[in-house]
Amino acid sequence: MFKEKLKEFEPIFYPKSIAVVGASSQEKKMGSRWVKGLISAGFPGPVYPVASSGGTVWGLKIFPDLKLIPDEVDYVIASIPRQAVLEFLDDCAAKKVKVVQFFTAGFSETGKPQWRELEQQMLRKARENGIRIIGPNCLGVYCPDHKIPCGPSPLGKIGISGSVGFISQSGSIADKLMEIGMARHINYSKGVNFGNGIDLDASDFLQYLAADSKTTVVGAYLEGTRNGRHLFGTIKEVAKTKPLVIWKVGRTEVGAQAAMSHTGSLASSAAIWSAAIEQAGAIEVHSLEELTDSLLIFQQLGRCKGSNVAIIGGLADGGGGISVSASDACMETGLKLPPLSSKTRKQLTNLLGEVGSILRNPVDVSAAQFHGLSTLFQAIELVAEDPIIELLLIQEDVDIFLAYFSIEEMKKINDFFIELRNRQNKPLVVVLPPGSAEPERLDMEQMLLEASIPVFCTMGRAAKAIMSINKYFSSK
Amino acid sequence: MFKEKLKEFEPIFYPKSIAVVGASSQEKKMGSRWVKGLISAGFPGPVYPVASSGGTVWGLKIFPDLKLIPDEVDYVIASIPRQAVLEFLDDCAAKKVKVVQFFTAGFSETGKPQWRELEQQMLRKARENGIRIIGPNCLGVYCPDHKIPCGPSPLGKIGISGSVGFISQSGSIADKLMEIGMARHINYSKGVNFGNGIDLDASDFLQYLAADSKTTVVGAYLEGTRNGRHLFGTIKEVAKTKPLVIWKVGRTEVGAQAAMSHTGSLASSAAIWSAAIEQAGAIEVHSLEELTDSLLIFQQLGRCKGSNVAIIGGLADGGGGISVSASDACMETGLKLPPLSSKTRKQLTNLLGEVGSILRNPVDVSAAQFHGLSTLFQAIELVAEDPIIELLLIQEDVDIFLAYFSIEEMKKINDFFIELRNRQNKPLVVVLPPGSAEPERLDMEQMLLEASIPVFCTMGRAAKAIMSINKYFSSK
Repeated sequence: MFKEKLKEFEPIFYPKSIAVVGASSQEKKMGSRWVKGLISAGFPGPVYPVASSGGTVWGLKIFPDLKLIPDEVDYVIASIPRQAVLEFLDDCAAKKVKVVQFFTAGFSETGKPQWRELEQQMLRKARENGIRIIGPNCLGVYCPDHKIPCGPSPLGKIGISGSVGFISQSGSIADKLMEIGMARHINYSKGVNFGNGIDLDASDFLQYLAADSKTTVVGAYLEGTRNGRHLFGTIKEVAKTKPLVIWKVGRTEVGAQAAMSHTGSLASSAAIWSAAIEQAGAIEVHSLEELTDSLLIFQQLGRCKGSNVAIIGGLADGGGGISVSASDACMETGLKLPPLSSKTRKQLTNLLGEVGSILRNPVDVSAAQFHGLSTLFQAIELVAEDPIIELLLIQEDVDIFLAYFSIEEMKKINDFFIELRNRQNKPLVVVLPPGSAEPERLDMEQMLLEASIPVFCTMGRAAKAIMSINKYFSSK
Repeated sequence: MFKEKLKEFEPIFYPKSIAVVGASSQEKKMGSRWVKGLISAGFPGPVYPVASSGGTVWGLKIFPDLKLIPDEVDYVIASIPRQAVLEFLDDCAAKKVKVVQFFTAGFSETGKPQWRELEQQMLRKARENGIRIIGPNCLGVYCPDHKIPCGPSPLGKIGISGSVGFISQSGSIADKLMEIGMARHINYSKGVNFGNGIDLDASDFLQYLAADSKTTVVGAYLEGTRNGRHLFGTIKEVAKTKPLVIWKVGRTEVGAQAAMSHTGSLASSAAIWSAAIEQAGAIEVHSLEELTDSLLIFQQLGRCKGSNVAIIGGLADGGGGISVSASDACMETGLKLPPLSSKTRKQLTNLLGEVGSILRNPVDVSAAQFHGLSTLFQAIELVAEDPIIELLLIQEDVDIFLAYFSIEEMKKINDFFIELRNRQNKPLVVVLPPGSAEPERLDMEQMLLEASIPVFCTMGRAAKAIMSINKYFSSK
């Protein structure tokens, strides 16, 4: 599906060369930062700074004119005054540039007729000359696979190349998706921020990501669209091929006004969007946390359904309150918590004793603390072996644990989780709530994430993420 | 109100001496851990370990019998087998002990008639002898003000003594409340975990906290009650005096079953509870995060109403997407985001320029990056000075900021926040979302929390917390 997009978008996500127009020898200028970012990231092709001033920046020669670049130029990043865009597009036409990404802003999002008209003139000129436009008012492409960083930061941060694709109408959300990805091991194949989207828009990029074999799940941050019918059709097609998680903002009056000022988007009714997303078989989320949580779990658990969940809590001190509140969080989200088989419950009672234990599901394993880690591991293994259980959801309170045990014992527990997950084929999800031992908790989180075990900081967020994977695959 | 509770509960929260029964010379035994915890915390009175074995533990003499302690004993922590409880209560009567807290579990929460009956016998014996019982199946008192730690951890952690009180039916939730308090500067006056609550229960402790002059806000984790009518009456009275935030669990079928196994609580319909809490003028929350978020904001902002909020985002890179999504999060929670006055908007346009800015409310200040920090500070100050604005809600993405600026510049921003808050009398709330710079973010968070600026990790959580304070004080 949409296979034609692969060839068409080759110069967008895999350009052989990039020109940055508006990169003077002042290193603090946006264009210059962009050049530095590409160098820092290790972009594999040539990077050509362009500015009428000439000179050098970051050791590279600045071309006074796009047309003077000796090579072909696939992709242009334009950070120029808005008054100059039409003339600049003439240069691009002369140079036979394939794609221009405009960082330049101040068009329809200002709400003023003259700038909206200029935007339309840009589009006409681009179409006449076979140039594709990303933006204006955007950061363009993020492609870890081809070492293109997200936006003009001179650090040129690049995450590990992975299987998650995203589109974002907002640059700051694209940037934050990249940062959270680095922190939580959400590894992107590619992403794009398309701002006002006057030429290439959400539908185009969604179609590309649907066709891209490196991408297995797609996230989208949307503020609005100029062509709802076409976009909903695309969403439906994409969601047939791979999980598509959509965060649509501008749902409220003030949110919609802000969206208008931000990317010139006309927001339609929140209810219409929700209904259309649901009907199209995509997953709707309502915050950046929900979006990244869903992307993480789709990335880590693949096609798992896992509707029958076992909750385990109380790895050190009593897990009673955690068991009760986790049951509510999971049940209210729609997960199933079937009672363990009577055989498993009998085995758990023999192992942990009846007093101070909750052994039906949820399971409070805190009584294991009187016997040592091997009893704890046996208890978790008994739950994992129960045939009715499809997914283990374990809450681990690092601060409480460390009030009773050592950091070495904590690491042994995590090693056991990894080993258990590898040995059996039931997915394991860990909840690590923040508390008074944040450095240790962050270490544990990294250790589990590196082993591809999804980690969440609250039970409610874990439950919602698991539910999104349940929902998507059970309708397929 | 409830002034009589102050004297009655003096031996509970301010005991002159504590005996720990079940503290043998084996340092790993629960009772022995408890003794160590009290020593570590610096409990100001004598601690008497008691066990038939005699001997010593942690350098203290173990009394073979409660009655052999030469001193008066106000408060007893009992970690003994359940079979021994009745005989033990005879000893307590002989010794004229005022309060016994039973860590001992295995009573009505087992669901078995013989243990439910034993629980009733305990209660009768205690009543006949003028002994008050906390529990059984609980951790008892946490009182930073009197150096009583929360539960049997040998570390004996004690947070800063403050103005937040809590009651919790669950020990693990009490423990986690304490840990989160230490991490987020939620400073408790006192808390209590009362488990099965056969004698002193939620109502008693709520009445005490209402009367306690050191407590200005109360949080409650509840699984169920034996006397709903009495409890709702108490909630109503307490909520008249101070903000009362209630997290009631066991709302779902599995949650209610777990509550039964945990503290022998019969959960009633979630809808009845919600209606009763609302009617009583208390605030209902649905997770540990919401509970602690509310307690934090009540502690830090006092009587602030702050219904007219200004959102500021984009301290470095574009805050467009953040502005749009934050508007949704705040509006959907019920906060008001009034447009800034035309005067303020004009001043902001002069300062930041029109292109790439959102200046109505939310305010995207990212264009300040082209001018430096002093322009950023001016912009924030202009928003703060607008007479319609009652509260500033600022999102600060540490990882994005650090891709453009230095950590020293970040610290200057936080110094400015603190200085601004001190200078004017409008509260300031900061959202610091997690990302790829966690150590730096945690430093920033501590810096702001130490200056009594409430910090949240998502806009949605900040909005909900602000709304809870709005709601409470606007009905008063």
